[in-house]
Amino acid sequence: MAFTNSDVVSNDTEEFSGVPDELRQASPHEIRRMIREERFTGNTSGFSLGFLQGNLAILPAEYAMDFQRYCQRNPKPCPLVGISDTGEPTLPTLGFDIDIRTDIPSYNIYRGGELTDQATNIKDLWQDDFVTFVIGCSYTFENALMAEGVSLRHIDENKTVSMYNTNIQTTPAGPFSGGTVVSMRPLSVEKAIRAIEITSRFPQAHGTPVHFGDPEDIGIADISKPDWGDPTEIRDGEVPVFWACGVTPQAAVRNAKPSLCITHSPGSMLITDIPGMDAGRGPLRV
Amino acid sequence: MAFTNSDVVSNDTEEFSGVPDELRQASPHEIRRMIREERFTGNTSGFSLGFLQGNLAILPAEYAMDFQRYCQRNPKPCPLVGISDTGEPTLPTLGFDIDIRTDIPSYNIYRGGELTDQATNIKDLWQDDFVTFVIGCSYTFENALMAEGVSLRHIDENKTVSMYNTNIQTTPAGPFSGGTVVSMRPLSVEKAIRAIEITSRFPQAHGTPVHFGDPEDIGIADISKPDWGDPTEIRDGEVPVFWACGVTPQAAVRNAKPSLCITHSPGSMLITDIPGMDAGRGPLRV
Repeated sequence: MAFTNSDVVSNDTEEFSGVPDELRQASPHEIRRMIREERFTGNTSGFSLGFLQGNLAILPAEYAMDFQRYCQRNPKPCPLVGISDTGEPTLPTLGFDIDIRTDIPSYNIYRGGELTDQATNIKDLWQDDFVTFVIGCSYTFENALMAEGVSLRHIDENKTVSMYNTNIQTTPAGPFSGGTVVSMRPLSVEKAIRAIEITSRFPQAHGTPVHFGDPEDIGIADISKPDWGDPTEIRDGEVPVFWACGVTPQAAVRNAKPSLCITHSPGSMLITDIPGMDAGRGPLRV
Repeated sequence: MAFTNSDVVSNDTEEFSGVPDELRQASPHEIRRMIREERFTGNTSGFSLGFLQGNLAILPAEYAMDFQRYCQRNPKPCPLVGISDTGEPTLPTLGFDIDIRTDIPSYNIYRGGELTDQATNIKDLWQDDFVTFVIGCSYTFENALMAEGVSLRHIDENKTVSMYNTNIQTTPAGPFSGGTVVSMRPLSVEKAIRAIEITSRFPQAHGTPVHFGDPEDIGIADISKPDWGDPTEIRDGEVPVFWACGVTPQAAVRNAKPSLCITHSPGSMLITDIPGMDAGRGPLRV
């Protein structure tokens, strides 16, 4: 069975309109196997529902200590959920038999801070000095929001969430620095309050919002023109609510200009064996 | 004004019987100044009430990446709240004007994994390759427990909490490994449930317990003989409740045998400028 993005279309289910049942209910191990065999190379939103998904950053060891400091100092955009041993493509604290060289649907390759390439595996690029970082992802709290009755327009409309550069500066570490990238979800005030309550339980998946209301307060000039993802309509009676986003470290990497950095392509996450509701309770016991 | 441990005696207040009012209400900056001038060299429990206190570990850079991995993989015993830049004695994400060479009341010096010395400052030991790690501390959740009506016997009796080695193995990273060290507080079942509820809000201060009930389940042969701290009476109708403890990394350091490691002496913590209730919400904005 092979899937492409074009298979991921509305099938009229209540909450995860885009994802076929067999992918929603498949185990993380099954999905990773499908990805490893390059039978799927797209967006993992809604896959293996209930399991923690993660953003990826792979860096040579010389940058690793500063990048780790950067994540520790900026836990809202960069909640670290796993770090590999140097040169090891496995992540035993995040899942059984993960091979980070193959288990991401699509990789972004940055050289000197510039996106130069995309790939469906990085077997030929692997180096003995690589350190892998996995950072919690908003899919975790989005599942919790929808399960508790807070519907999300970008998911209802099968689009990618709107993301923006802001003037909220991160705390620098070594060469890593820059503004916080945020994702935006329009909500009624009542649902916004509920969403803050729910996301406070997920500090390892960006936690509570960083802002709501006037986009200009955080340096967003035109809310209809996201820097990443699709535009999202804001209806009467709704406020835009902004969460720190896992794209932030990719912006920091562009500033740091490391010789090489490999990330996931936006939306194509690592699916871990950790139950999503356990995000924030630490790594898997091995 | 100078204080010693002998000044820290019961003065019959409700909750923090041992600590004079001027120390409870002093700002973190004032207390650190007193410590820097070596006018206090004891236990900081109850000082600058409401501000996050931290365990200390200073290591040469060659051990820093593995120690950081060790903390990330073991967030209950080792919740990282701050990491310095290499060679920098300041901690700007944790407080104004911290100098880690002088701002801890008492330091333990480990050489090759053995405790060889204690000191009231480490100005003469400082190295350009040192990295400082600050790990959340149980004082944060103890304040919250007492504020919400869960009284703690070791504090009522002005003793040090009972701590034990266990057979709960940590997830290793490089040379760092070993059993989890726990602290024990006897509580009624009703208060134990409330304590689990309250401490779930403090993932950066050891979070929820790792065990309650039979001490032998986690390898403690004789509950009346703690490995650190004072014995604590367990009364009829009480269960012992065990939390992961910030002494765990000191045990890991003994296993790793780094050439040099400097920690706080048990009970003599770094007092940060971070409001304690904000533990878990990330570092101070600087």
